[in-house]
Amino acid sequence: MRWSQSFIPTLREAPADAEVASHILLVRAGYIRQLAAGLYSYLPLAWRSLLKIQAIVRQEMDTIGQEFQLPALHPAELWQASGRWELMGGNLFRLKDRWQRDLCLGMTEEEVMAAIAARELRSYKQLPQIWYQIQPKFRDEPRPRSGLLRVREFIMKDAYSFDVDEAGLDVSYQKHDRVYRRIFERCGLRYVAVEAHSGAMGGSQSQEFVVLGEAGEDMVALCQACGYAANLEKASAVPAPFADPDTAAQPERFPTPNARTIAELAAFTGEPAARLAKSLVYIVGDKPVLVLLRGDDEASEAKLGTAFGGAEFRPAHPEEILAATGAPPGSVGPVQLATPVRVLADQSLRGRRNLTVGGNQEGFHIRHVTPGLHFQPEWVDVREVRGGDACPKCGQPLQVSQAVEIGHIFKLGRKYSQGLGVRVLDAAGQEIVPIMGSYGIGIERILTAAIEQNHDANGFWLPKAIAPFEVVITPTNLADPAVAALAQQLYNDLRAQGRDVLLDDREERPGVKFKDADLIGIPARITVGKKAAAGVVEVVDRAHRQTIEVSTADVPTALAEMPE
Amino acid sequence: MRWSQSFIPTLREAPADAEVASHILLVRAGYIRQLAAGLYSYLPLAWRSLLKIQAIVRQEMDTIGQEFQLPALHPAELWQASGRWELMGGNLFRLKDRWQRDLCLGMTEEEVMAAIAARELRSYKQLPQIWYQIQPKFRDEPRPRSGLLRVREFIMKDAYSFDVDEAGLDVSYQKHDRVYRRIFERCGLRYVAVEAHSGAMGGSQSQEFVVLGEAGEDMVALCQACGYAANLEKASAVPAPFADPDTAAQPERFPTPNARTIAELAAFTGEPAARLAKSLVYIVGDKPVLVLLRGDDEASEAKLGTAFGGAEFRPAHPEEILAATGAPPGSVGPVQLATPVRVLADQSLRGRRNLTVGGNQEGFHIRHVTPGLHFQPEWVDVREVRGGDACPKCGQPLQVSQAVEIGHIFKLGRKYSQGLGVRVLDAAGQEIVPIMGSYGIGIERILTAAIEQNHDANGFWLPKAIAPFEVVITPTNLADPAVAALAQQLYNDLRAQGRDVLLDDREERPGVKFKDADLIGIPARITVGKKAAAGVVEVVDRAHRQTIEVSTADVPTALAEMPE
Repeated sequence: MRWSQSFIPTLREAPADAEVASHILLVRAGYIRQLAAGLYSYLPLAWRSLLKIQAIVRQEMDTIGQEFQLPALHPAELWQASGRWELMGGNLFRLKDRWQRDLCLGMTEEEVMAAIAARELRSYKQLPQIWYQIQPKFRDEPRPRSGLLRVREFIMKDAYSFDVDEAGLDVSYQKHDRVYRRIFERCGLRYVAVEAHSGAMGGSQSQEFVVLGEAGEDMVALCQACGYAANLEKASAVPAPFADPDTAAQPERFPTPNARTIAELAAFTGEPAARLAKSLVYIVGDKPVLVLLRGDDEASEAKLGTAFGGAEFRPAHPEEILAATGAPPGSVGPVQLATPVRVLADQSLRGRRNLTVGGNQEGFHIRHVTPGLHFQPEWVDVREVRGGDACPKCGQPLQVSQAVEIGHIFKLGRKYSQGLGVRVLDAAGQEIVPIMGSYGIGIERILTAAIEQNHDANGFWLPKAIAPFEVVITPTNLADPAVAALAQQLYNDLRAQGRDVLLDDREERPGVKFKDADLIGIPARITVGKKAAAGVVEVVDRAHRQTIEVSTADVPTALAEMPE
Repeated sequence: MRWSQSFIPTLREAPADAEVASHILLVRAGYIRQLAAGLYSYLPLAWRSLLKIQAIVRQEMDTIGQEFQLPALHPAELWQASGRWELMGGNLFRLKDRWQRDLCLGMTEEEVMAAIAARELRSYKQLPQIWYQIQPKFRDEPRPRSGLLRVREFIMKDAYSFDVDEAGLDVSYQKHDRVYRRIFERCGLRYVAVEAHSGAMGGSQSQEFVVLGEAGEDMVALCQACGYAANLEKASAVPAPFADPDTAAQPERFPTPNARTIAELAAFTGEPAARLAKSLVYIVGDKPVLVLLRGDDEASEAKLGTAFGGAEFRPAHPEEILAATGAPPGSVGPVQLATPVRVLADQSLRGRRNLTVGGNQEGFHIRHVTPGLHFQPEWVDVREVRGGDACPKCGQPLQVSQAVEIGHIFKLGRKYSQGLGVRVLDAAGQEIVPIMGSYGIGIERILTAAIEQNHDANGFWLPKAIAPFEVVITPTNLADPAVAALAQQLYNDLRAQGRDVLLDDREERPGVKFKDADLIGIPARITVGKKAAAGVVEVVDRAHRQTIEVSTADVPTALAEMPE
């Protein structure tokens, strides 16, 4: 393609609201333009790249499953049958049609796929099935931001498996694991597979594929020693040990005026935060629950959800805390409660002794409190892993890093097949409910993750397999007949070899052309300049900023030898 | 692909609500399933075909334009700027987001493309631009029906051109005309290009591509002699001439008790309907207009819209007719009106004499009325062409036929570029508003039209280029090792040749396999049966139901020689 015939509106300035590299560069490189909050138009360069990504995903998914295409508009009845009509709250785009029937825009398609399965599957002989599609999805994000990383409309490859039993699901799950790795490798990403939390979807085993980078909104824990990797929503770890004083003193109430937070209490008592127990009160369903953590730990929302058995929960309001415990916020503790309350404690407090806890009275705390002796909590895992915690597999220190999620596979269980009425007869003629898996890849996430991994101050370079063009030919001076002719010849030759080439045939200064070429994500540049008459050009490796001079005959070799 | 690994849920029975062939067969062949009124899930066979159609469309469109991908969700502001927010009424799916902002689902994308152009185009040097996309569109159809022919969500290739002036638009329009013809030819359709009405989109020149067939909801007029073809909304023609009596008698009121309709009046007077003038009263904007037609003609809604200059209009209610003309419905006429009213007459009444018209009085008509002499109408073209009318080009009789619209190109003008603020500087440095064209292809319409053209009682056959598989291999008895081995070998060989092959490896009786193979749209079948041991198979041409016996080595030739 000729640059003069292309619509590549590059910009010198970053958009005012852009912070992450991929957002800044996608706009500057003329890949995307914002239409409204969280809604982006994809211009030709972005779409060329996204089509290549979709083709790779399709080719790999076709080795294990079959492609469908489902409507974006879903009747409300299906979402009511699964319970997600209520569950998804404001995230679901809802509308009414001309007959005032409720519809929503698909966010994922468990319901529709299960509804098809319910109508079409009759026998275990029809299983397993793996059904997928590549399609726009809709989510009314409360905080759209970071360019294409958090949007309200995006393209997702979503897949669903139906199996007779858990063993079958395991096979379908492993197939996706294998295919996903191949997809991300073909797309040239440096990715990590991490254990994940199953979230609002329900289900058991779950794994995310992430790309590490500060643009990410996920946090993951990684062990360099043994390879353990998990989303912080899921990660377990052993906190750094802490030696408690060895005293047989009994619990003792003492005044702590104005010490309401852990920091204030640590300052007042002179004890480290790890010696203090943090009390958090939640309303779970409609009942208060007290959760204890080590003072220097934070609770993980996702782990709390699991600890509460999937029930809805929220932090209690101050008046609810007072009503439930008789104590104002900042002085709640697990012993000497005015009203008995369900008490959960993070397992990191197990074996700890002589801790200081809230006194259930304004301005007082209680010291010398030992869990299991002075109160009997339910032990749970709710603390968020921190960098330096011991790896649960090998004990070496964990790293915690930001990460961009690019894919997610998980074992869904029977929630949707049950809710939507999927039933088949098994080999014994008994009616059974097939078990489902659910698997997603964010198409734009692959593009953005690649940019996050491959950029500098001047622009970015995409892996060849997903770049809009493999190579850009930059003639420095089209008025020079030797330059113009050689550029055109190279363009013809490389196209004849089946390469995706962009020829910068614009009447612009070399500086402008080089700047644009560096910006727009093309991994290789061929500069046709002063030595054109001698048949010599420069091949520039954008990623490594290395330039070699070659004769035109050697250009294919030079391109082929360029490291990915 | 192996049939046993494929999801092809064929049905013996047609769905109860299905009437047109493509609807019945798409469901029976396991291509589609209805999710809700006008919403269909595309199963793997349909999607394979639709992907091939999209690839052809993309390849051809890439020769003249650049591919975008725009959001389905549009902010209301853009549609308010173009005036379509009101104009589209109940056809537009509307919703509010979590911030209560108005959004709609894209029906076509003139507004979004023009909004991008307004922000990005500055100079005539950037023109022309042809921007296209392939994407789901949404339209809240009042009467979804006929399977994929009238739906509420469908895939459309929509393109938009921006040019400096009318001459440029003409070039862009001709480019689309050429590319569209190539697309429909590559898809194997027998199509007709017809002059079309521009409808609610505004604009001037317009052409539809249609496939003739009784499933169609469009009506077109065709001249076999000279090739003239036009949508009835647009078609002009000369009605069969009618000799009026040659009398100099003056207009004469006469009683016509109970003769309110043309049929009643013809019966009462003994005159043919062609001698009577039909009076129709419309409210145009807020003013009444009287429209006269030959008694045996019907008015075309689309042509009325043009005659009324694009203003909103509707038939007048009886009390409005009485108020405007002083006459009750059934007796309105153009002469001796109590109140002067704007009178339009179809041009077919030009030169006619001594007609009978309404008397503007209950139970009376007036005879011997000659247009141009006894009243002065504005001459317009509002009659709907009928079969047998004379072709406006060559005078031969026209045929009228039902047709399925598969594509539409038209010169939009400046409505959207003006409304959305597209401005560029021309060569003289003057600000100008670029002129737009708009071009659409219904992706599913290509599939349905192909089925309407290629089906029989047992199923359908698609043109090879858009069939989900080019050929199905049907071994009659897999228990016979020679049959199983030859089928497998043919499958491997044909795939190695790059062909899209389906191997029916199911343990089913031959009759079941043949029935399914006939049903699902694959143009060729290879039957591997009794002569397998001798290396001989049957190649069946599904369209022509012709079978030839060939040795396996000759299969590729036999497939290649099969007529499209």
